[in-house]
Amino acid sequence: MAEMTGAAGPVTTGERTDAARLAATVAAIQPADAGVAAATGRLLDGKTKPRGSLGRLEEIARRVAAVRGTSQPGRPRAAVVVVAADHGYAQEGVSAYPAEVTGQMVANFAGGGAAVCVLARQAGARVVVVDAGTRSRTAHPGVWSRRLGDGTRNATRGPAMSRERAYAGLVSGIEIARRLAGEGIGVLALGEMGIGNSTSAAALAAALLPADAAATCGRGTGVDDAGLARKVATVRAALAANAGRLSDPVGVLAALGGYEIATLAGVALGAAAARVPVVLDGFITGAAALVASRLAAAVTDSMIAGHRSVEPGHTLILDALGLSPVLELDMRLGEGSGAVLALGVIDAAMAILAEMATFDGAGVTDAGA
Amino acid sequence: MAEMTGAAGPVTTGERTDAARLAATVAAIQPADAGVAAATGRLLDGKTKPRGSLGRLEEIARRVAAVRGTSQPGRPRAAVVVVAADHGYAQEGVSAYPAEVTGQMVANFAGGGAAVCVLARQAGARVVVVDAGTRSRTAHPGVWSRRLGDGTRNATRGPAMSRERAYAGLVSGIEIARRLAGEGIGVLALGEMGIGNSTSAAALAAALLPADAAATCGRGTGVDDAGLARKVATVRAALAANAGRLSDPVGVLAALGGYEIATLAGVALGAAAARVPVVLDGFITGAAALVASRLAAAVTDSMIAGHRSVEPGHTLILDALGLSPVLELDMRLGEGSGAVLALGVIDAAMAILAEMATFDGAGVTDAGA
Repeated sequence: MAEMTGAAGPVTTGERTDAARLAATVAAIQPADAGVAAATGRLLDGKTKPRGSLGRLEEIARRVAAVRGTSQPGRPRAAVVVVAADHGYAQEGVSAYPAEVTGQMVANFAGGGAAVCVLARQAGARVVVVDAGTRSRTAHPGVWSRRLGDGTRNATRGPAMSRERAYAGLVSGIEIARRLAGEGIGVLALGEMGIGNSTSAAALAAALLPADAAATCGRGTGVDDAGLARKVATVRAALAANAGRLSDPVGVLAALGGYEIATLAGVALGAAAARVPVVLDGFITGAAALVASRLAAAVTDSMIAGHRSVEPGHTLILDALGLSPVLELDMRLGEGSGAVLALGVIDAAMAILAEMATFDGAGVTDAGA
Repeated sequence: MAEMTGAAGPVTTGERTDAARLAATVAAIQPADAGVAAATGRLLDGKTKPRGSLGRLEEIARRVAAVRGTSQPGRPRAAVVVVAADHGYAQEGVSAYPAEVTGQMVANFAGGGAAVCVLARQAGARVVVVDAGTRSRTAHPGVWSRRLGDGTRNATRGPAMSRERAYAGLVSGIEIARRLAGEGIGVLALGEMGIGNSTSAAALAAALLPADAAATCGRGTGVDDAGLARKVATVRAALAANAGRLSDPVGVLAALGGYEIATLAGVALGAAAARVPVVLDGFITGAAALVASRLAAAVTDSMIAGHRSVEPGHTLILDALGLSPVLELDMRLGEGSGAVLALGVIDAAMAILAEMATFDGAGVTDAGA
């Protein structure tokens, strides 16, 4: 836990407490249970189909079973956690949309009309909307207020947030995951909203992979060529302005991240510690997953990549996490839309494991092929 | 309608009647309604998301709307038609499984334990199992008997079936589709079962694309290298034995096809004529779709490729049909499993069109991006 000691280590009491909570969560994360995965594979081999013929559905079933710690996990109840926050990056003209849209979309989430809400109803998943620090501050019924501030600072001029806030976001996410696991959620999709947050994700990816800003920046929700050039310049400026703060994962998160990304990294860690599989969405949740993986390498065992976004940096992150996406549908919306769409495929995989007939039970000849 | 006239034309009264029914169905198939597709695109552009950011979900919604003939098709009720038959090809040792498995699997479909049944329950789709000509002849509750014979003949020694049987199969499929459309089904997935039928599909693809047998033959449910070599040799022998019968689509279908493939080609045509989108599964339903497309080119407008099978010939067929698959999950089971899994994504696309909020309605700023 390099981030807990040394010159860049915690300095305030709150930070020390949160760092200790983070360390306890990291320590609780187990690698996937290979024995359970193998036992699940044997169950799948007994089903009335040629061995392995359901391809990635079988792989998903084995992975979920291994994370849950049982070869008979049933069909876990799903939720999507959509975390919203505003970003100082938005001041640099990096988005096609004005910053006000973050708050407007939180209202849209609360009203059930956003894409992720429609897709979650279709998938039978619960939607949990979290305000981790929007500028609008407007409270909406049903939205969980876990605010870390009124949006981050402009990272081209220094750290986006303090280390204390980064730790607080991680712990906030851990507690969200723990609560949902306690309420019976067995698979957790990640979603986000925040005008400017694909710039934050690009900066985090550039620092952590590491990679050049030109490779991690894409068009986000739809900037033009000039906007894309501003985005690359903004990421480079943020990296330069924070050059001395990038030696540990929490330092990188604080310098370049966002409140929703810190919270989502915590959700991923907390879910893994609670043996709940985490379904990633696109580039921004991918950046949060990347931060989580640098705090606890084993966390990737509990991750499923819901889809591959068209955002170019997303593929770099998936490769670094060692994940292959379930869906490739040229989506680039975020919100958790791709992750929630993948929940249907994951539930199908779990239904196969739970409900399909065996060769013995159905009287079908098994060629062992 | 070259197949209705000339030396290879219908010769019996039953054949003439069925050919006339087929011609009437082909004449009823309309190209996709571009006006409806455009109107649907405008509705999607008004939803609270950047333009086009839901990628292929938006494309699917436009396609379904265009086939249904309305920009507000709602969320159509889905069914999967699983057609089973036995094949003379099985005598050539081309499958890892004995021919008895076809009938055993029909019983498994009737019992609800097969993969396609589990996935259809998960997707909320009705399962219609059709016996188009299994050797077992066993009647099962709920299975539709549309038998064209006791399995096809061995095509390495002459035509798999008569032209009369091929026409009868096409008309049988048309009537199945018409009945389901009449019962309110608005999207129809295709599935199949038949030991030896990937060899039939490989022969059909080789003749129709055209392509070399080595390119259209794969491992099916899991043959070894020797089995794959037998399969290629079998396809070559079937093509040689039927060289004089391959000048029109019905001739190819009769010479090289199977009863389930003839029926499924008819289902595709009947569904298109009834403005019901057809969701293809893997290689065998792809071969049926290829036959249908050679009888009525416009039928491909109403098709959605559910997934890309690992069977190499499937990609050749998808390219010929001009279709890009919804899912790529390394599946190779058949039964309709990939098509039914795609039904979830298609329903999600329709839910987006039907239920998502608009910029105006939700008070979200539209950047027009």
